Amino acid sequence: MIIVMKSKADPQELDNVIKWIESAGYKPHVSKGVERTIIGAIGDERGKVVLKALETMPGVEKVMPILQPYKLASRETKEGNTVITVGEVKIGGPKFVVIAGPCAVESEEQLMESAYVVKKAGASMLRGGAFKPRTSPYSFQGMGEEGLKILAQAREKTGLPVVTEVMSTSEVELVESYADVLQVGARNTQNFALLKAVGQAKKPVLLKRGMMTTLEELLMSAEYILASGNDHVILCERGIRTFETAMRNTLDISAVPVLKDKTHLPVIVDPSHAIGQWKFVLPLAKAAVAVGADGLLIEVHPDPQRALSDGPQSLKPEKFYKLMDEIESIAKIVRKEYAQGHGAH
Amino acid sequence: MIIVMKSKADPQELDNVIKWIESAGYKPHVSKGVERTIIGAIGDERGKVVLKALETMPGVEKVMPILQPYKLASRETKEGNTVITVGEVKIGGPKFVVIAGPCAVESEEQLMESAYVVKKAGASMLRGGAFKPRTSPYSFQGMGEEGLKILAQAREKTGLPVVTEVMSTSEVELVESYADVLQVGARNTQNFALLKAVGQAKKPVLLKRGMMTTLEELLMSAEYILASGNDHVILCERGIRTFETAMRNTLDISAVPVLKDKTHLPVIVDPSHAIGQWKFVLPLAKAAVAVGADGLLIEVHPDPQRALSDGPQSLKPEKFYKLMDEIESIAKIVRKEYAQGHGAH
Amino acid sequence: MIIVMKSKADPQELDNVIKWIESAGYKPHVSKGVERTIIGAIGDERGKVVLKALETMPGVEKVMPILQPYKLASRETKEGNTVITVGEVKIGGPKFVVIAGPCAVESEEQLMESAYVVKKAGASMLRGGAFKPRTSPYSFQGMGEEGLKILAQAREKTGLPVVTEVMSTSEVELVESYADVLQVGARNTQNFALLKAVGQAKKPVLLKRGMMTTLEELLMSAEYILASGNDHVILCERGIRTFETAMRNTLDISAVPVLKDKTHLPVIVDPSHAIGQWKFVLPLAKAAVAVGADGLLIEVHPDPQRALSDGPQSLKPEKFYKLMDEIESIAKIVRKEYAQGHGAH
Amino acid sequence: MIIVMKSKADPQELDNVIKWIESAGYKPHVSKGVERTIIGAIGDERGKVVLKALETMPGVEKVMPILQPYKLASRETKEGNTVITVGEVKIGGPKFVVIAGPCAVESEEQLMESAYVVKKAGASMLRGGAFKPRTSPYSFQGMGEEGLKILAQAREKTGLPVVTEVMSTSEVELVESYADVLQVGARNTQNFALLKAVGQAKKPVLLKRGMMTTLEELLMSAEYILASGNDHVILCERGIRTFETAMRNTLDISAVPVLKDKTHLPVIVDPSHAIGQWKFVLPLAKAAVAVGADGLLIEVHPDPQRALSDGPQSLKPEKFYKLMDEIESIAKIVRKEYAQGHGAH
Repeated sequence: MIIVMKSKADPQELDNVIKWIESAGYKPHVSKGVERTIIGAIGDERGKVVLKALETMPGVEKVMPILQPYKLASRETKEGNTVITVGEVKIGGPKFVVIAGPCAVESEEQLMESAYVVKKAGASMLRGGAFKPRTSPYSFQGMGEEGLKILAQAREKTGLPVVTEVMSTSEVELVESYADVLQVGARNTQNFALLKAVGQAKKPVLLKRGMMTTLEELLMSAEYILASGNDHVILCERGIRTFETAMRNTLDISAVPVLKDKTHLPVIVDPSHAIGQWKFVLPLAKAAVAVGADGLLIEVHPDPQRALSDGPQSLKPEKFYKLMDEIESIAKIVRKEYAQGHGAH
Repeated sequence: MIIVMKSKADPQELDNVIKWIESAGYKPHVSKGVERTIIGAIGDERGKVVLKALETMPGVEKVMPILQPYKLASRETKEGNTVITVGEVKIGGPKFVVIAGPCAVESEEQLMESAYVVKKAGASMLRGGAFKPRTSPYSFQGMGEEGLKILAQAREKTGLPVVTEVMSTSEVELVESYADVLQVGARNTQNFALLKAVGQAKKPVLLKRGMMTTLEELLMSAEYILASGNDHVILCERGIRTFETAMRNTLDISAVPVLKDKTHLPVIVDPSHAIGQWKFVLPLAKAAVAVGADGLLIEVHPDPQRALSDGPQSLKPEKFYKLMDEIESIAKIVRKEYAQGHGAH
Repeated sequence: MIIVMKSKADPQELDNVIKWIESAGYKPHVSKGVERTIIGAIGDERGKVVLKALETMPGVEKVMPILQPYKLASRETKEGNTVITVGEVKIGGPKFVVIAGPCAVESEEQLMESAYVVKKAGASMLRGGAFKPRTSPYSFQGMGEEGLKILAQAREKTGLPVVTEVMSTSEVELVESYADVLQVGARNTQNFALLKAVGQAKKPVLLKRGMMTTLEELLMSAEYILASGNDHVILCERGIRTFETAMRNTLDISAVPVLKDKTHLPVIVDPSHAIGQWKFVLPLAKAAVAVGADGLLIEVHPDPQRALSDGPQSLKPEKFYKLMDEIESIAKIVRKEYAQGHGAH
Repeated sequence: MIIVMKSKADPQELDNVIKWIESAGYKPHVSKGVERTIIGAIGDERGKVVLKALETMPGVEKVMPILQPYKLASRETKEGNTVITVGEVKIGGPKFVVIAGPCAVESEEQLMESAYVVKKAGASMLRGGAFKPRTSPYSFQGMGEEGLKILAQAREKTGLPVVTEVMSTSEVELVESYADVLQVGARNTQNFALLKAVGQAKKPVLLKRGMMTTLEELLMSAEYILASGNDHVILCERGIRTFETAMRNTLDISAVPVLKDKTHLPVIVDPSHAIGQWKFVLPLAKAAVAVGADGLLIEVHPDPQRALSDGPQSLKPEKFYKLMDEIESIAKIVRKEYAQGHGAH
């Protein structure tokens, strides 16, 4: 941590700050510049945000952290890529992984039809929501446990592992008993109680970035899960909120290489939720492969016009087959080099 | 809902859309303009976001909602202001209300000292967190039930009603047994499971706006609570996330009159979390009174340098006394006219 | 400037960085921490952003500036408030200043009618655009020199000094020959050629913050004008662009006390452009007075429904008279204390 | 334009609005719904933002535009892609185009060295700034006409057409006499005086999107140039400003397919300015090719550590050669299909 003193700070103020730093268990290291005196507080600053309180002391201009606040999620802690195994699927390794399915489980028929499309297209995993976070209390809230049972049934029939969302600490156990991967949604990225709960689960967690979550905060949320004992975290970029209204959210494609530089965890991309319109999902999917993502999360629905949730962004089966074809040739080029190095750069 | 057809949509496409609208239970009303045909879908569109799925149909350019998606929270549903009573305090009435206290309950001594400062300054309610949502898993996470007991004790000694945060559905009952008002924090504004749970509680709810929650989404989150049976919701503006980094968040002061135009619920402002630096809390507090807010949420700490959470933005007792003095004279001018009309406009 | 080395930087890399710093004319000061080595580069870093290029050197993690990049605009350079005199009006002193008028000069009749309203209400200066920056090339672009003449005529008749916008380097001389204050609009905040040109003018400059301009960038734009020789700069907060769409822009009310902490220049607020709807202008105007702004810029139009530009946010005369009344009593309270100290905090 | 009346608007208010619409030259079309009456104002609404003024009339809730405000830039006006020819280079056709060079022309030696690297790598055009928009007045402001001469010399030696920025209306003629393409920078996207001036130039214009310019505003700025008589506009996405601080700006990759859906103009991507760090330029360049951009703008510098501007994001020659290699194989796949259809979707 660096403490920058005001240009007019007097010696007594400097002295008080130094004593404070020592009393907090750090070693102060003073450096006098032409216009400012700065003090380095030497020691592990993680978790000790309390140093920030120095900003209230007379004579202090600002306090600047040096270290990244996450540890277990950091590539400094673990250099090689984390590869997460779900059945026969490996996420974070050389093979590009596609997870697809409808936004919500609406009926056995709709889900089974979707599952066969996903399987036929050659995707690796099935997604579908049984508990749905909806902005409006009047919208379809999901089928609940009934939906989980349908998902489990689809896994049996197709062999595809199943990803589904968990919204509340009290549902973690239930969802875990059916699903292969627990999804934490974009509105719960900083629901710390939920993060601790899935951190105690045995199944891998797919952690979505919130619309307003910085990459550092996303890694801190992953840190919650890792620190609770669950090593299996997949990060997912799904678009952030900006001033632009031409699309639903702004897909932060740069998040992929920046995250892969900072962390050993796999990173996938959800272009469907980001853009919100099916016709732009294909080009974004190709961009995600090219930029070095480890996989995609895609919404597919047999009849988007009748979907109870997120119809406008769901692909019809034939569009999804086309997508799988087109990304394959790009993945071949991009993942080859990936297999040699340790990331997208 | 208005459906705008593409300029090149053919009659068959138009016909399909009309049939779809009818099959969904709406009455279509077609209007042919010079360059576009538009269709009004007449009927209550709330909760029927499914109409949005029309955007996937050939020939459709865009679908535009007309009605606001919330109903119970709307001033159209209830014209007069909702006044929420907590003990002898009334929020949303002519009297301006100040809720103050430390960010977190750290010890009996610290909380009691804070409570007496709050009381002495003439504020109406005491705040303090027992369960703390912290970005880092390594930061102080709050005292839990022990903290709730200390809060209850402070209420007994000072007579001040107590506001404290609840972070998880499984803690609602516990927190409700100690607190007078349940706070839902900025990272849980769209934690729908939690909103439903506090909607079933008997105590009023102080609902904070998320850092990237639109006002419409905030009102939809209030709608979740209202629709679950709890009429007592206080909205709180606490700063939004923008590109500006000179302050912690950007206090959206306009949110106050805009919310009061759209809803009958009381609206308060939390300048401490918004700005993140104590020295700017006073001018922002004055602005909040002047703009027509119903109250303030202020962080006060007897020794900010030693605070375990949010020290930099906490006021020392003497600064808080000054704040209470200065806002009083502005409140006198602004609330007088408020008492006559129904809000700040 | 602080240079943070990577945790795995080797001694040779450290050595190279040190040599680079010395060759650039700075004195390096090395400090070895537990996990990182950091180097202070001692010397005046302003204008030498070239140090940032160190980020490309092997072993360097990041480069963090310490000093603020502006000098002439800084309160460190000049402690007292700058007061700008325009005729008999003083901006930045104890008296709160209101500048009002229509968005655009549309005709002699419309402008003269507006000017008399402004005068009658007791405002200090008249605003009106002759050159209009419009998003659409098909919108009314302003009356040009003809509009300037009408403004000059209104000044003669009412005695009110005149503020008007200049959009291009080639028009500076022309506008200066008619106006009392040159306005640089929000879309030109970083039009550096224009900043240099108005920096050579003799008239004061009203510099609006861009919708996407940080406070630091705004102060750097002021620095351009000051460094070109014009000391008379008035800063104006007029709303920034955020994700929120309920209002036109988000008025960044905190910008006022934060700016007044960093600079000696006067700061005014334009609530009309920020909010974009006349009915919210009054509460925001009161907030601006309360937060410590030095003045207001308000749009007033005798017949907003027929305005050629920005009708929805213009106040009718009677609403403007009410605004002037209501802000006066708040200004009395807030400016009294202002007159004693040096700002809003 | 759709006018939505308030739920409590009375018949007189409705009548007044209808009369107003007629008096403004539109045909009103009334539709009474269950909760709202809406009125369609039939007629060409472009350039008549004046209808927005209806929002000030009693009884009106909101006014919603239906048509996009640009015409010449719209794909509705021209279905096929616009291909812009600069010497032997065609932008917007099947071949992917790379424009590269240093941020600023610093000396003859530096520019010539860069030019040969660009040529050797197989890129199509040379970029380099002679007039530099810099946030700080103390930073290097460019070599001016001297720099233009060096650029012209590099063109002669290498045969590469030259792109360079113009910052002011008074420099358009000068820059045009040396350059092959005039660049309008991100801070001048809404410098309407400059847009009109380059609209009268004979050379193509490379129009960068501002950091907070919406896609609709970008197209309106293009419309300014087109409406002034210059058909040759290339749009460039270069990152927008968001809350995320891990990178310089957020590259809005979705802007590419969305723009190509709305306009016939070519769209290129500048990953260097967006991300601000050389090590992430390569993956973003690949994403830009994959998403369907028509070209790239890349910063290359023979010695980034000594660059006077934007060193941290400039590629060294060997990195640039690698980039050209890697994007070629992706371009082959993506542009093949492009050549058949009319865009990226």
